Amino acid sequence: MSSKIVIETPAIAKIGNKFAELGRQKKVVVLYDKNTAGLFEKSISEQLEKDGFIFHNLIVPASEASKSFRMAYRLYGEMLEREVDRSWSVVAVGGGVVGDLGGFIAASFMRGVPVVQVPTTLLAMTDSAIGGKVAINHPMGKNMIGFFHEPVLILIDPNYLRTLPNREIFGGLAEVLKYALILDGSFLDFMEDNFQEISTLVSPYIDEAVKRSVNAKVKVVTEDFRETTGLRAILNFGHTFGHSLEKLSNYKALRHGEAVLVGMACATQLSMKIGNISSEDAERICAMIQKFPYPKRLIKKYFLDVAPETIIENMRSDKKKEGKHIRFALLKRIGNAYLHREEIAKEDIIFAIEAAKPLFA
Amino acid sequence: MSSKIVIETPAIAKIGNKFAELGRQKKVVVLYDKNTAGLFEKSISEQLEKDGFIFHNLIVPASEASKSFRMAYRLYGEMLEREVDRSWSVVAVGGGVVGDLGGFIAASFMRGVPVVQVPTTLLAMTDSAIGGKVAINHPMGKNMIGFFHEPVLILIDPNYLRTLPNREIFGGLAEVLKYALILDGSFLDFMEDNFQEISTLVSPYIDEAVKRSVNAKVKVVTEDFRETTGLRAILNFGHTFGHSLEKLSNYKALRHGEAVLVGMACATQLSMKIGNISSEDAERICAMIQKFPYPKRLIKKYFLDVAPETIIENMRSDKKKEGKHIRFALLKRIGNAYLHREEIAKEDIIFAIEAAKPLFA
Repeated sequence: MSSKIVIETPAIAKIGNKFAELGRQKKVVVLYDKNTAGLFEKSISEQLEKDGFIFHNLIVPASEASKSFRMAYRLYGEMLEREVDRSWSVVAVGGGVVGDLGGFIAASFMRGVPVVQVPTTLLAMTDSAIGGKVAINHPMGKNMIGFFHEPVLILIDPNYLRTLPNREIFGGLAEVLKYALILDGSFLDFMEDNFQEISTLVSPYIDEAVKRSVNAKVKVVTEDFRETTGLRAILNFGHTFGHSLEKLSNYKALRHGEAVLVGMACATQLSMKIGNISSEDAERICAMIQKFPYPKRLIKKYFLDVAPETIIENMRSDKKKEGKHIRFALLKRIGNAYLHREEIAKEDIIFAIEAAKPLFA
Repeated sequence: MSSKIVIETPAIAKIGNKFAELGRQKKVVVLYDKNTAGLFEKSISEQLEKDGFIFHNLIVPASEASKSFRMAYRLYGEMLEREVDRSWSVVAVGGGVVGDLGGFIAASFMRGVPVVQVPTTLLAMTDSAIGGKVAINHPMGKNMIGFFHEPVLILIDPNYLRTLPNREIFGGLAEVLKYALILDGSFLDFMEDNFQEISTLVSPYIDEAVKRSVNAKVKVVTEDFRETTGLRAILNFGHTFGHSLEKLSNYKALRHGEAVLVGMACATQLSMKIGNISSEDAERICAMIQKFPYPKRLIKKYFLDVAPETIIENMRSDKKKEGKHIRFALLKRIGNAYLHREEIAKEDIIFAIEAAKPLFA
């Protein structure tokens, strides 16, 4: 992976130097959603002016619906009207929606201009802004249209997290926990010891959690950029179950991180069921999962009250399927995940779902 | 460049073996336009059946208007409905429009599936199908939205050319001549000696002309895949002038190759004006250009009757501009082109246009 990554406060202050290092002209289209424009447009514009950038700000609604062809088309038009050409770059300031949309536009505008990711959510900082997967949605499926377009620069400012509602923070922490579980056992110790500080964004605990997550993601992406070796598939730990729940909630009610939290509980049970991790390890993971608050009514509606067969059925249309059966990312032990390539019996998957339900009852 | 290239008759008979070599599953979406479906769908489908492929045929109107967001969107939907996933490939059977649209869809569907180009026009065989430049249009400009997505396989069957109208063949031969002028002086000798046979598609002359053109394009693309060193820019010899004429004719009346033919006459005059090639070389080039038939009424309307200033003005919005002035691909001598990076005085450009006009009067 060749993205330059800055993790500090204020990260945006580095943009001028980094553009000089990259040999890019100081001309940028800055993409915000309505929320991030309200929170960050003023300070970012001031910094860009100070550094002598020419820039245009583009603002889209803060909604998954912005990841559409219609919106991409509108943005191309605005860029062409303002005579943006291949000497410009795109800067995406926001969570997953803005990052994906900004990356998509950058990848496709005049056959590709560089993108700078400025993630503003914990999930974006530790996951979606890193690795170059960008996409828009199709009515028939999420992220169906997209590319690999690695950002040239990722500016991560943990201070931005203070603007987030609690639900967003815990959603992001679910992905942070995932990195500990799949790649970094000592990171789970750190999370167990400092969960209160991390979840209330106390420095330097939150910074450390962000850094370790970023390192984990970079490691996986570097070794398997185009998802060919199967290593990148371990990032889907909890996601095959989770995506099914997200789909059941129409990608609206449940947050991604909340669905993944439940999904990790299921995947842990499945790992134990097919004979990998010890029950001690599984209990430790479950205890950590139970520290997370979650939206009780929604989890009841889209998990507890749903038949396991329905959850499995909704996995089948997930684009991650390859060939005939669903493959799961599972744990061998804490800090060590792998892609289970063999078929898993439906009864075992049902068992894992049922075994995870009491954690959220 | 890593594309495998087959040049023979029938080329499609190689698709099964090549897929086996590439390790790709025999599942393909085959994109045609209405013309190429009428001409080739039956024989291609028979071959695919014989080779045990699973395939779906998609057909779009034979028009530049098919290179649109709307059409791409419709095709994604059809592919999703038929449960096409990342284990499939796209095969594009047609000229530049189908090749660009098929490549665009392949590049973006589920973050990229392989594309096989089966060019059916001389222009596509020798130029657009090679090198991975794919795009769709935006109302504000041609090819504004696109990517670099190299085909895994290019199947060139010179026999397909027999289905083409004369105007299409000579349009393609203009690009063939371009390769001789910019890269391969001995190829101009060959063209001078055998122009009658080549232009009437007599074997093996036409096959040889296709092969030498393909080799020239591959050479340039290999050495400068992403257009960073300026080498690929020599492929634009005649195109800066030519694009201006195409734009003036609304990308409809004049064929690309016809505009490029006129453009090469202008670029040759400009090369001579700023002191590169000898008048002997220039005369040889002009003599060859004059062997081409061209649509007299259209060339009068969009070239002879247009003020040079208007032609220059329409170059300025070409996306190939970088920085403040227009750069031209020019000739040092026959078989040797370069990108002229310095600004050229407007009077010299006007002189070149005026000097080229008598060739078409």
